[in-house]
This record gives sequence, C-alpha cells and structure tokens, in this order.
Amino acid sequence: MIRRNKERREEVLHEMKEGKGDIKLFHLLEKDEMSGKGRLCVREVLAPGYSIGYHKHEGDFELYYILEGEGVFNDNGVKATVRKGDVVRTGNGESHSIENIGDKDLELIAIILFE
Amino acid sequence: MIRRNKERREEVLHEMKEGKGDIKLFHLLEKDEMSGKGRLCVREVLAPGYSIGYHKHEGDFELYYILEGEGVFNDNGVKATVRKGDVVRTGNGESHSIENIGDKDLELIAIILFE
Repeated sequence: MIRRNKERREEVLHEMKEGKGDIKLFHLLEKDEMSGKGRLCVREVLAPGYSIGYHKHEGDFELYYILEGEGVFNDNGVKATVRKGDVVRTGNGESHSIENIGDKDLELIAIILFE
Repeated sequence: MIRRNKERREEVLHEMKEGKGDIKLFHLLEKDEMSGKGRLCVREVLAPGYSIGYHKHEGDFELYYILEGEGVFNDNGVKATVRKGDVVRTGNGESHSIENIGDKDLELIAIILFE
C-alpha cells in the first residue's frame, strides 16, 4: 500500500492537550492499519508559537521524529531544544510537551504504540 | 529520552536482502525500546543506485516514510515511484523492495511492527 503526501486524512486539533494554537495532523496510517500494536501514526505540523500541552502517557509510549524546524521539548520535566533528525521517546507513565519556538513550521512524525 | 541525530548506533548492511550496494542504518530506537511491539525503527540511507532487495514479511509488517530523494518501490509486485512525504505499508505475507533511482541519497524511516 502506498499513501501519497496528499492522500492522507487531515485533522486539526485546537489547543491540543491544552497547548496553544491549531495543530495539523496528517494520518500516515489509520489506527486499524496498526494491527493492534498502536493507536496513532501521524505527521504533525505546528505553526510558530503553537504547542502540544504537557500530558502523561499511560498504557502506551510515544516517539517523535523531528522532520523540520525547531522546538522546545519537555522530557518528563526537563526541557531541551529538539531539531531535525532528533528522536524522542516518552515511555509508559512519563509525560511530555512540545512547543514551536522557531519562525517556521515545526514538523514531526508521532507514533503511539501500546505498552 | 532524547536521542540526537549524531547519537544513533550506525550499521552498514551490504547487499541488503540481495539488493545492491551498502545501506546505512541509523537506529532511532533499539529493539528493546519497542516494548515488544516491533523489531526495527531506523533511518535508512541508500546512495544512488543502491537498493534493498525484494523480500517477504512474515509475522510482521513494515512501514516506510520517505524523508528525502526518490525511489522505485515494488509494492507486492507492482512498481511505483515514491518521493518525500510518501508512506508505504507492507503487510504480513506481503513483499517489497526499494531502489534509489535518483542522483542523490534516498532517505527513509523504516519501522517493523509485529503482526
């Protein structure tokens, strides 16, 4: 199965996890294409100043792969700047947030797998 | 956990799945960081002319997200060009290959999850 850039289901989440702004989600795989191993596989786009609020993962873990731009990532209470090519993993019971601190879009792949 | 671009374990596979050339793998997550849900989470780099040979997936499924460049993807017997932003899914019992047909590196994220 090939799913082109422009063929993905698009979703916009307002103030995602009590963050700022409107986050665009482009579904790379739908949940029923993950064979019960996870529940999210998306490309997310955060415009400058937008963020996904701090939230805890329970029963699953999430990884982000930064595609473009620069963000501040709160890694279970410790903040650091993340850039293109960086990967982050937030485990079961851990928390995270991410904010676009740059002047262009922050783009990332986000995948949530069950723990 | 944050793993920077330059902190990943690098591996080079020669004639991967009887393909051409040397494929560079940069491990985004190690297998033991996948909580039993999968066995591979890498960024792969194929120089021009290099390829991953045609092979079947049994007991798992794989997705590729194309980061840069252009390749010919053999999707279970049907060939198509894939480019930046495209995602492909090869299911349990299906087969695939990918070849760099461009004049710059083909880079992709590859994730194998169990079925």
